[in-house]
Amino acid sequence: MLLDKLLGTEESLRVSAEAVALMQALYPICRSITGDGVRRTLDLLDAWCPIERHEVPSGTQVFDWEVPREWNIRDAYVADASGRRVIDFREHNLHVVNYSVPVRKTLSLEELQPHLHSLPDRPDWIPYRTSYYKDSWGFCMRHRDRVRLTEGRYEVVIDSDLSAGALTYGECVVPGTTEGEAIVYTHTCHPSLANDNLSGMAVSAALARAMRQLRPRLTWRFVYGPGTIGSLTWLSRNEALLPRLRCGLVVGLLGDPGPLTFKRSRVGGTATDRALEHVLRAADAASCVVDFEPYGYDERQFCSPGFDLPVGRLTRSSNGKYPQYHTSADDLSLISQEKLAESIRVLAHALSVLDANRRVINLSPKGEPRLGKRGLYGSVGGNAPSSFEHALLWVLSLADGTQDLVAIADRSGVSFDQIHAAATALDAAGLLRDCEDSPQRRRENLS
Amino acid sequence: MLLDKLLGTEESLRVSAEAVALMQALYPICRSITGDGVRRTLDLLDAWCPIERHEVPSGTQVFDWEVPREWNIRDAYVADASGRRVIDFREHNLHVVNYSVPVRKTLSLEELQPHLHSLPDRPDWIPYRTSYYKDSWGFCMRHRDRVRLTEGRYEVVIDSDLSAGALTYGECVVPGTTEGEAIVYTHTCHPSLANDNLSGMAVSAALARAMRQLRPRLTWRFVYGPGTIGSLTWLSRNEALLPRLRCGLVVGLLGDPGPLTFKRSRVGGTATDRALEHVLRAADAASCVVDFEPYGYDERQFCSPGFDLPVGRLTRSSNGKYPQYHTSADDLSLISQEKLAESIRVLAHALSVLDANRRVINLSPKGEPRLGKRGLYGSVGGNAPSSFEHALLWVLSLADGTQDLVAIADRSGVSFDQIHAAATALDAAGLLRDCEDSPQRRRENLS
Amino acid sequence: MLLDKLLGTEESLRVSAEAVALMQALYPICRSITGDGVRRTLDLLDAWCPIERHEVPSGTQVFDWEVPREWNIRDAYVADASGRRVIDFREHNLHVVNYSVPVRKTLSLEELQPHLHSLPDRPDWIPYRTSYYKDSWGFCMRHRDRVRLTEGRYEVVIDSDLSAGALTYGECVVPGTTEGEAIVYTHTCHPSLANDNLSGMAVSAALARAMRQLRPRLTWRFVYGPGTIGSLTWLSRNEALLPRLRCGLVVGLLGDPGPLTFKRSRVGGTATDRALEHVLRAADAASCVVDFEPYGYDERQFCSPGFDLPVGRLTRSSNGKYPQYHTSADDLSLISQEKLAESIRVLAHALSVLDANRRVINLSPKGEPRLGKRGLYGSVGGNAPSSFEHALLWVLSLADGTQDLVAIADRSGVSFDQIHAAATALDAAGLLRDCEDSPQRRRENLS
Repeated sequence: MLLDKLLGTEESLRVSAEAVALMQALYPICRSITGDGVRRTLDLLDAWCPIERHEVPSGTQVFDWEVPREWNIRDAYVADASGRRVIDFREHNLHVVNYSVPVRKTLSLEELQPHLHSLPDRPDWIPYRTSYYKDSWGFCMRHRDRVRLTEGRYEVVIDSDLSAGALTYGECVVPGTTEGEAIVYTHTCHPSLANDNLSGMAVSAALARAMRQLRPRLTWRFVYGPGTIGSLTWLSRNEALLPRLRCGLVVGLLGDPGPLTFKRSRVGGTATDRALEHVLRAADAASCVVDFEPYGYDERQFCSPGFDLPVGRLTRSSNGKYPQYHTSADDLSLISQEKLAESIRVLAHALSVLDANRRVINLSPKGEPRLGKRGLYGSVGGNAPSSFEHALLWVLSLADGTQDLVAIADRSGVSFDQIHAAATALDAAGLLRDCEDSPQRRRENLS
Repeated sequence: MLLDKLLGTEESLRVSAEAVALMQALYPICRSITGDGVRRTLDLLDAWCPIERHEVPSGTQVFDWEVPREWNIRDAYVADASGRRVIDFREHNLHVVNYSVPVRKTLSLEELQPHLHSLPDRPDWIPYRTSYYKDSWGFCMRHRDRVRLTEGRYEVVIDSDLSAGALTYGECVVPGTTEGEAIVYTHTCHPSLANDNLSGMAVSAALARAMRQLRPRLTWRFVYGPGTIGSLTWLSRNEALLPRLRCGLVVGLLGDPGPLTFKRSRVGGTATDRALEHVLRAADAASCVVDFEPYGYDERQFCSPGFDLPVGRLTRSSNGKYPQYHTSADDLSLISQEKLAESIRVLAHALSVLDANRRVINLSPKGEPRLGKRGLYGSVGGNAPSSFEHALLWVLSLADGTQDLVAIADRSGVSFDQIHAAATALDAAGLLRDCEDSPQRRRENLS
Repeated sequence: MLLDKLLGTEESLRVSAEAVALMQALYPICRSITGDGVRRTLDLLDAWCPIERHEVPSGTQVFDWEVPREWNIRDAYVADASGRRVIDFREHNLHVVNYSVPVRKTLSLEELQPHLHSLPDRPDWIPYRTSYYKDSWGFCMRHRDRVRLTEGRYEVVIDSDLSAGALTYGECVVPGTTEGEAIVYTHTCHPSLANDNLSGMAVSAALARAMRQLRPRLTWRFVYGPGTIGSLTWLSRNEALLPRLRCGLVVGLLGDPGPLTFKRSRVGGTATDRALEHVLRAADAASCVVDFEPYGYDERQFCSPGFDLPVGRLTRSSNGKYPQYHTSADDLSLISQEKLAESIRVLAHALSVLDANRRVINLSPKGEPRLGKRGLYGSVGGNAPSSFEHALLWVLSLADGTQDLVAIADRSGVSFDQIHAAATALDAAGLLRDCEDSPQRRRENLS
C-alpha cells in the first residue's frame, strides 16, 4: 500500500478541511525560532500526529552558529501621551520585531522612527521583521497608521525575555523496512502568517499521519523546526544518518493559489529531483520546476556543499513571489482548501514515488528471461505486448544497477505506477533484486 | 575497396532484381523457429552466398531458455460435415497457428471457436499467430470467412510433429584483417510474410555476397536465425567473441515503402549508433532515428543488460507500424524493388563506414606535423586549404585516441568518406596509427 | 586593481589613438617569418612596452619542423624591355612572393606567367602569397596590370638572401603572484597588412603595457612571433611551463568593422572558453562564438592534441571572412579606431576575468556560515537579501572545489565582477580558500 492510495482525491479534500481547522487554531500563536509559541504549536500538531520533542540548550554550538537565547514575549506596545496604544502587540503579533529585547522607555517621535518598519507601497499591511542575532528592538505597523503619528512623547514597552533556555523542534519518525532515510522538513518559526507557514506544518502533519498507517521502505522523518538554526541543529544532531539519506523535501507555502513549484537540489538530478519532476509533470501542466539557488528556506542548509544532500523544496508560490509574502496579509483568507488538498495529494504521490523508488538489477540479464513460463507473458505470439508486458520488458532492459525506477519511468515514458507494478511482479518472480549500495556509489551514479 | 563501391546505384538495382526473384522462391515455404522450412530457406540462400549451417539439439539450455522440440507440418485443415475444407493450410500457411500440436478430432463450431483467430477490422487478411512455448493449436482465417461458418460438426486435422530435433541457423562469415568482429542478424522464422522477413534475408545475403569479394577489417558474421531463441542461441555459442564485437545490426523489413528507420542500441552513442546516424543523415532526409525500446526484434537480446552490445537495428517501417504487419497482406505485392535497392545501397554504405571506422592516434601530436614535406599540403601559402587539406587537419587535430573516424566526421562536418581518405593518407605518411584497445576501454570511451 | 579598470571606455579610446599611430609606423615594413623586418617591428613595439627578444638559429629542430634559413630582401622588380618596372617591390612589399629565392634573369612573358599571382575577381588588389618551405619565387600583382602585360622579354630581379640566420620572436613577461601562467600570442609575420596583423600587435602591446602596472595573479606572457613556426618554437622552448598554463588567447585581426569573434579551444569548456563566452555575452550582443576548427592561426598549435592547451582565439572578422583578407586592401583604411578601442576594452575585461578566476573552497561548508557576525549580512530579517548578499550566498554554495568563479557567475546569472567581489570579501573573512591543484586535476574538472 502506498501513501497516494491513502490520500486520494476524496480523502485529501476531507483532510484539508481538518488542516484548515488546525491552521485556525495555530494562527494566533506568536511563534519565533525559540520559545513557548513553538511549544504550543507542537502541542497542537501532536494532537493530530504524535511528535517527539527535542529541546536543545541555548549556547549549544551548531557548526558556525550557536543556539541563541530563548525569546518569550508577553506584551508590547507604543502608547501616546494620552496612554492610547498606537501600536499594540495584542492586536497583532507582527507588530513587534521578532526577538526584540525588553524595552521600557519614553521617546520622542523622532527617536522612535528608526525603530519603526512599514511598507509605503502597501499601507494597509503590517510587515514581518526579525532581529534574531543582533540585540535590537522595533515595531512594525501599517504605513497608513505611521503617517498619522503626531509629534510628542511615546511610551515604548516590550515585555519580552531573552535568556538561557532552549531551541525546540519536533520530529515524527515513521520507521522503514530498509536502512534508507528520508526527511520532510518544514519551518515553525513564523508568527501569525498563514501560508508561510501554517500551511506547511498542516500539510506535513497530514502526510505524517497517513504515513504512520503504512510500513514504508524508508524511515521517514517529518521535522518541525525553526528556519535556518532549526535545520542546522537537526543536521548537527543527525550527521550519522546523513549517509543513508536517500531523498528529502523542504515543504511550505502550500495553501496559496499559486502553481505547485519544485525547486531542485543544488546538485540536481538526484532521486528527489527526478521523482518530483516526474510527479509534477503528471499532476498539473501549470506546475513549475525551478533551478536551485542559495536563497530560500532550509534547502539552503541541506544543500550546502558540506552536506550536498538530495533535498529539494516544494511550495506553491515561492518565497517573495506573492504580494502578501511576509506581511499581515498572509492570513487565513489567502488559503484555499482546494489548493491545500491538491498539495497534500501531490505530495502523497511524491512521497510514494520516493519511497518505492530503488535501483534494481536484472538477475537474468543475458537475453530476455522467459516470462511466459512464469505466467508473466501471453502465450500466443504474433501480436503486440500488453502495456504491462511492455513495462516488464522496460524494467528488465534497464535494470542494470545504474537506473532507479524513476529513471526507468522517465526513459520509457511509462508511468511510475506501471513501472513499479512491473518491478514488483519481477521481484516476486525472482528476476530482480534491489541494488542497495553505499551512498558514495549512489551519488556517483546519479550525478 | 569498400562495400559501398561494390553496391552503388546501378549495381544495387541489379542485385535487388535478383533479390526479388529469391524472395519469390522463398515465399511459399512454411518456416518456423525450427524445422525443415528453415533448412529449405537456408538451401536457397546458400545458392546465392555460401552459408555454414548449425544444428542445435532440442533441449539445449540457452540462458533462461531451452531449444524447443522441432516442429514440422505436412497438412492442416478444418472440414465441414460435407468434407469441404473451410480452412486449408495448403491454401496459405498462415492458416495454422505456428507450432500447433498435432490434432485429429471432430468438434462443434462452439468448441472450435476458441481455436480460431481473425481480424474483424481487416476481414480479408489472415493474421499470423504462434504458440511456440505452450502446447496448443489453432487456426487463423479471414474474418469474412469466419462469420460465414455455420453450426455443425467440423473435422479438425493438424498433421504436425513436435519432437526432439534441432534448431537450425546459418552463418556466413567473412574473415577480417583485425581481431574486431561485426554481426548482421536477420530472422528466418516467419512463414509466408514477404517484408517480414524475406526482405531481410535477401538484403543480408546480397550484402554478404558482396562483402566476400573484399578483405574487410572486421570479421563480418551474417547470421540467419529464428527470432528470440535464434539470437539467444547464437549469443550462447559465441560468448567468447562478444568482447571483440565492435558493431552490429539487426536487419529486416527492408522492402516496404516506409522510410529507412534506425533504432538505436540500448546504451546509445556506440560506433554503430553514430555510424548509422551519420549514414542516414547523408542518405535521405525522410529517414528516421528512433530511440531504443525493449520490444521489437533480436536487438532485444543483443542489447539485454547482460550483453549490452553496440547493436542497433535497421528496418524501413518498424514492427507493428504498417497495416499489413503480421498478416497475409504482407505479401510480395508490398515489396518495392526500388526500396529494396535503396536498403541495400544504404546498408552497404553503413557497413563500409562501420568496417572502416577506427580510433586513431596522431603520431606527431605536438603542433601540426609538416605536411608539405610529405607532399600532403600545397607549397604556396596565403590562401585557404583545399578540402582534402582541411580533412587532414581535422583528423590530425582530433586523433587523440578518444575519437573514431565517425566522431571526427561528425564534429568536423566533413563527410566520412573524406575523413577516411585523409586518415588513409596520414597512415601512409606514417603520421597516424590505429588505436585498438580492449573492449572495456572502448565501451568507456563511447558511453 | 584589475586590468579592465585601467582600460575603461575613455582610456581605451586614448590608447587606440596611439595604437593607430604605431600601426602607421609599422605598416611599411616588409615582415616575414624571419629577418630584419621582424626585428625592426619588435624595435617599434619595444618603444611602447619592453620586449625581451629571442633569436633561434636556423636549423634548430622544432618538433616535426626546423627553423628555416633567414630571409631578407632589398629589392625586387620585373622590368620590361624599355627598363620600366612593371612590378616593383619598392611600391608595395606584397608584390613579391614572401620568401622568394634570389633571382636575376630575363624571361619571356610566357615563361614569367607561372610565377605571377593575381585575383581576377578583385582586379585592383594585390594578393599576399608566401613560399616558406619550398625554394621558389614569384610576384603578386593587380590583375588589371597583369592583363596589360604585352609579349616581350622581361628582366626579373629579386635581390633577396636566404641564408643561415635566426628566427626572431619577442616576449613581454609580467610576473604573477601565483605559479599559474597565461599567454597572449600574436603573429608578426605579415608584411604590409594592417588588420592582419598590425592590429593584433598593437592591441597586444597596449594590454601588456597596462598589465605591467599591476600585480596579476598569473604570470602573463605577451608573445610576438611568426605564424606556425613561431608558436611551435615558443612551445618547444617552454614545454616546462605548459603544465602551469591556466589560460591563453591567440589574438589578431582586431581593427576591422566585423563583430568580435571568439573561437573556442579544441577541447572546449576550459576556463578560457567560459571566461571569454561570459565576457562577450556581457560586451556586445553582436559578438559571436565559433567552435574550434583546425585551420586558422596559432591556436592550431596550442590546441594540437599533444598539447591540448586551454587556448582560444579572439579576432573581429575571422581569417578569410572579409573580402580584403590577405590582399593589399587590408590597409590602414580598413582600421577603425573605435573598433580597436572596443577590442582593447573587451580584451582587458577578458584578461581581468581570466586573471581573477580561480577555483574556491568554502571553509565552513556545513550549512551557511553566519555572515551577520562577520558584518557581511544585514541584521534585520524578513526581507530579501541585497544583491551583494545574494552573491555571497552563491559563492558559498558553489565553492565545493569543482567550480571556478566564472562557473559560479554563469550558473548564478550574477556578473563575474559581483561574484569576484563576493569571493574577495569571503576570502577576507576567512571563509574561502583557493583551490590550486595540479593541472592534471584541473583538466579533469574542466573537461
